[in-house]
Amino acid sequence: MEKPVASDHSNMAIEPHPLDPLSPQEISLVAKLLKNHCPDKSVVFRIITLAEPSKKLMIPFLQAEKTSQPRSPPPRVAFVQYYLDHAKHFHQVEINLKTHEIFGKQALVGKHSYTDAVEMQKSEKACLANPRVQAEIKALDLPEEAVVCVESWTYAPDGIEDMKQRIIMCYLYMRLGTHLDSNHFAYPLDICAELNGDFEVMKVLSLPSADSDRMSECSGNGKKFDRKKIHGTSEYHPDLQTERRTTTKPLLVQQPQGPSFACDGNLLIWEKWRMRIGFNYREGLTIHDVSYDGRDLFYRLSLSEMFVPYGDSRSPYPRKAAFDLGNNGAGVNANNLQLGCDCLGSIKYFDTYHHTLAGDPVKMPNVVCCHEIDDGILWKHTNYRTNNAIVTRSRILVLQTIITVGNYEYIFAFQFTQAAEINYEVRATGILSTNPIDIGDSVPYGTVVAPGVMAPYHQHLFSLRIDPSIDGQQNSLLVEESHPMPINDPAVHNPIGVGYTTTKSIVEQETPLDTDVTKARIFKIINEKALNPITNTPVGYKLVPHYSQMLLADPSSFHAKRSEFTTHALWVTKYEDRDLYSAGEHTMQSLGGDGIASKIASRGQVGVRNEDIVLWHTFGTTHNPRVEDWPVMPVEKMMVTLKPVNFFSRSPAMDVPISKQEVNGSVLVDGCCDGK
Amino acid sequence: MEKPVASDHSNMAIEPHPLDPLSPQEISLVAKLLKNHCPDKSVVFRIITLAEPSKKLMIPFLQAEKTSQPRSPPPRVAFVQYYLDHAKHFHQVEINLKTHEIFGKQALVGKHSYTDAVEMQKSEKACLANPRVQAEIKALDLPEEAVVCVESWTYAPDGIEDMKQRIIMCYLYMRLGTHLDSNHFAYPLDICAELNGDFEVMKVLSLPSADSDRMSECSGNGKKFDRKKIHGTSEYHPDLQTERRTTTKPLLVQQPQGPSFACDGNLLIWEKWRMRIGFNYREGLTIHDVSYDGRDLFYRLSLSEMFVPYGDSRSPYPRKAAFDLGNNGAGVNANNLQLGCDCLGSIKYFDTYHHTLAGDPVKMPNVVCCHEIDDGILWKHTNYRTNNAIVTRSRILVLQTIITVGNYEYIFAFQFTQAAEINYEVRATGILSTNPIDIGDSVPYGTVVAPGVMAPYHQHLFSLRIDPSIDGQQNSLLVEESHPMPINDPAVHNPIGVGYTTTKSIVEQETPLDTDVTKARIFKIINEKALNPITNTPVGYKLVPHYSQMLLADPSSFHAKRSEFTTHALWVTKYEDRDLYSAGEHTMQSLGGDGIASKIASRGQVGVRNEDIVLWHTFGTTHNPRVEDWPVMPVEKMMVTLKPVNFFSRSPAMDVPISKQEVNGSVLVDGCCDGK
Repeated sequence: MEKPVASDHSNMAIEPHPLDPLSPQEISLVAKLLKNHCPDKSVVFRIITLAEPSKKLMIPFLQAEKTSQPRSPPPRVAFVQYYLDHAKHFHQVEINLKTHEIFGKQALVGKHSYTDAVEMQKSEKACLANPRVQAEIKALDLPEEAVVCVESWTYAPDGIEDMKQRIIMCYLYMRLGTHLDSNHFAYPLDICAELNGDFEVMKVLSLPSADSDRMSECSGNGKKFDRKKIHGTSEYHPDLQTERRTTTKPLLVQQPQGPSFACDGNLLIWEKWRMRIGFNYREGLTIHDVSYDGRDLFYRLSLSEMFVPYGDSRSPYPRKAAFDLGNNGAGVNANNLQLGCDCLGSIKYFDTYHHTLAGDPVKMPNVVCCHEIDDGILWKHTNYRTNNAIVTRSRILVLQTIITVGNYEYIFAFQFTQAAEINYEVRATGILSTNPIDIGDSVPYGTVVAPGVMAPYHQHLFSLRIDPSIDGQQNSLLVEESHPMPINDPAVHNPIGVGYTTTKSIVEQETPLDTDVTKARIFKIINEKALNPITNTPVGYKLVPHYSQMLLADPSSFHAKRSEFTTHALWVTKYEDRDLYSAGEHTMQSLGGDGIASKIASRGQVGVRNEDIVLWHTFGTTHNPRVEDWPVMPVEKMMVTLKPVNFFSRSPAMDVPISKQEVNGSVLVDGCCDGK
Repeated sequence: MEKPVASDHSNMAIEPHPLDPLSPQEISLVAKLLKNHCPDKSVVFRIITLAEPSKKLMIPFLQAEKTSQPRSPPPRVAFVQYYLDHAKHFHQVEINLKTHEIFGKQALVGKHSYTDAVEMQKSEKACLANPRVQAEIKALDLPEEAVVCVESWTYAPDGIEDMKQRIIMCYLYMRLGTHLDSNHFAYPLDICAELNGDFEVMKVLSLPSADSDRMSECSGNGKKFDRKKIHGTSEYHPDLQTERRTTTKPLLVQQPQGPSFACDGNLLIWEKWRMRIGFNYREGLTIHDVSYDGRDLFYRLSLSEMFVPYGDSRSPYPRKAAFDLGNNGAGVNANNLQLGCDCLGSIKYFDTYHHTLAGDPVKMPNVVCCHEIDDGILWKHTNYRTNNAIVTRSRILVLQTIITVGNYEYIFAFQFTQAAEINYEVRATGILSTNPIDIGDSVPYGTVVAPGVMAPYHQHLFSLRIDPSIDGQQNSLLVEESHPMPINDPAVHNPIGVGYTTTKSIVEQETPLDTDVTKARIFKIINEKALNPITNTPVGYKLVPHYSQMLLADPSSFHAKRSEFTTHALWVTKYEDRDLYSAGEHTMQSLGGDGIASKIASRGQVGVRNEDIVLWHTFGTTHNPRVEDWPVMPVEKMMVTLKPVNFFSRSPAMDVPISKQEVNGSVLVDGCCDGK
């Protein structure tokens, strides 16, 4: 699709697509331009990323692209956030990559940039080097072979610390033995430290226990580490595990003719689907300009934010409440996926580029994998009159990215089906965050998962951003419910009380909404101007939600104020360029008031009927740990589906190949051949 | 496991396991014995099946079996239902297969046996042969190439017909052309007929239309078939579909070392699971004596019943309300599964035997398939300090059975995971039941899916019966909810309102229960006498429900009275032998009052704490058809999970093989090798 053009002085041989992430050459150019712009300052680059063009410019470009009419792309612009000289001077600008114009300069006063590996490593080092911390460690009288580690956490405001300065919480753990992958989460120690943005240790604190429900300043004579806590069941690395089952025989996925998808750069075509892959430091994988069989469906699909608040009310634990996108970044924490480990079959990988603090591009290979899976039967019918069975199998295209945020892993996958459905699957795995607990004690907001190891209750709340374009940009949201017909209403013919019908209401203004399974409430994105020729009703796609408990923290709490999206299952807003983050753009030590609810309130009563609308679905899990989640948690799956409802004229899957043994080559297991 | 014994005169070479379905020799023996018992009568065999031994006898036998101590099995008994001379004389007996004793003889007065293929074929033939029906067909003035077909339906009482006699509803359709698999559901005709148990046509009725909201006796001058209804989009058979996509490349599942499971008769061993496969005419697939790593989990898992009521309130449509197990039988309607079509990889099939009305055994091959699937990542963690990623893949054992009940297909699968979880997955597919509608008309309780074809709203409500044995038979049901901690209670330390804890209550007596996602309400089957050594709490398994709308029909309706299980998501009862059917044993034209709610009421306040308990989970879908569900519906999936909660001492999946490219042999798709 992309056409070669004369290379310009930014050393780009090919003109990128307007939605392509920045190339290494573009990242270098941006760094060079901004450094030249501030010659006598040291520039620390926090974010160099693509500023996606406004939708006003993109729509005509994408339409022209699909009809192969040449049209010059919107200007390519980089979005940059950086420190000048010192973390206290936080700025942002935009830079036109063609004209090199620098504009939109802004000082981000009172805002905090996200954390990164460098900050985490520096804080860990500084914490361990601190004499007071060393004294406390010494006082613990740890075993010979103990190696103390630090888990540094971003600070969730709890009203105790000054909100203006950057705070880094350092929780101490130890691992036993020489193996570098021994599991330190198995030995949470009783102390933690509070560092400022200059990596100075401000406080060394002893963590609460069952008989002291809050932290206290360490005195230098903390209680000794209880060696009864030493145990052998918390290792996960194969080198450190004795028993491993050998009964699982190999299962191979083979695609002799290769995969069914085709790529051209970030353009992906599979079956009747067409879409463009995007990626950025914060949201990670994004999907753009999704169409099926030539009909527009979604302009942009992305994970907007996620919030992981912990339920242990004892200070300092309320400070454990992570915005894994806004505070850490799903993109910069994406795994380098390995062939044959993270998926099976014929795999296509997508790379991306991030950058150093100095602005040098850094390649991140294999951050997204693209592959197909067999999902069992797609449709089947047996005509009992002829005994003829017609079966088709469901092939699914998976776009997967996996992030590691400290202890936890999240596996995010967009799945596209031959029935024109889109699934968004989240799998939570990894290691539980742990707090110390005395042998024999228990707490009401956590589970003891090993001797001296308490895994606190917590929630994982995700915000999926859905920017629809169902047969065009003007869409509406229809709320439909199934209700019994009245039985004693003479105007209604329901003689024996078995009739039921649906109620339909179209949402007129920006608002939050909730699920209600007792009414089979469903949410349909419809295009009121496009009628289905068979049903004579507006074409649509429905959101099949993942039913979830919403935020448990009190509405007056910092948690609630900072994560406004977590209070309702669905939000509908009118589209605005750059309006991507349901907990606000700056979540790091945020105090709230700039999330989706505040935006809706500030905008007044904005109409969303026959408008360019955006849906934000909140879902997740209340995770009260099981001992079975330890030491590494088996995946907990969540799934949201987008499903056509009277969008097509019949099932779009009718033309899927009939399932045949000649093609599938299955193998019969001993002596059961009668059916053949 | 089974030991050879001297063959007895029932020609059995091997002594069957007490839970094995009846062998063909046993079926023949039963038929012979009962015919001899009633020499001067004609015996029509409705049911010849295994009478499962009482649990009191089975538990010691199963314990002895697992410890390889020889112990003689409980007496093997057949359960028989039959007509004498005439459908009006319906009886049941039991027959001891060793002693040949016939006992428990009972006349089933006022009860109706389930329907079968013979009855359906006879009623179709009788309907079409009837002169009044022929006259009505003639009056329709159908196209030359029309072939009229009859769909016969069991009768759901609607208060109009006498409940005592058997009624068969015959709905008329036509198919076009000579192809025997052309889709007659695409052409519902305006007439139906009412037959009695002797296949006599009692009434010929014209179906309601938008301007007549009830049926009426046909007058012989019904309106002509509207040829504008003829269309080309409703065929599903490949011979009749022009376009078929060719973009889907083959995907093969290969298991070079064969499957990871092993069978000995109906005993199945896979990974650390051990279970026994059962099958009967009514429930179809049943799973018995399930243990993991030598610890008992479930005594019996089965689908108890399902109910499919339609929401079209116009007579005669309220008569469309199917108990697909009690009225039709999941077992007798099970598909003969085909290698490479219904599943991939190395497949083991299980056969079963049913019988003719004369009592001759009939083999039903491949009614259950057993195979493994790869389910993506099971657990993963990357240690960011060493950058070492450890990944395991999830292998799942699937036991699948597929039933065809007239127009619809149901795919039932029990899935067993390496994390000691059990999933019960239901996929609904097949063809929608259709009613005629005039071109241009619409109704509030149905969707027009093709010209002149209306698919009425309906519900699919399933009842999953779970008979647990969590570390033994004495179990309790714990209801747990997650609630915020109070913020203004001085006795509670929750300074900034982020704390939350769980409430726990143990169910004391038989009762229905409901789901409540807003409280993250979960249902734990626990063994109060077995404490987890790590958590010091009772070991347990939790039910992860499928959130569903319950029955929409009015509580006063026949539908509600006949399907008592459909009003609540969960029922807990005390175990009783033979108490298997949540809508009662005889659902055919039942009038209600013998379902699970009535049983609970009649038994009084029966304790279920530290007792042998049974759980019954009601789940399903309110299916308001989409045009995309036509002509054959892409699967709609529902899933229920049973998950260990503090049952093990750590994750049971820690010893699963590490995922490696050397084993999995995945293939890299063009030029993206940087990550390797």
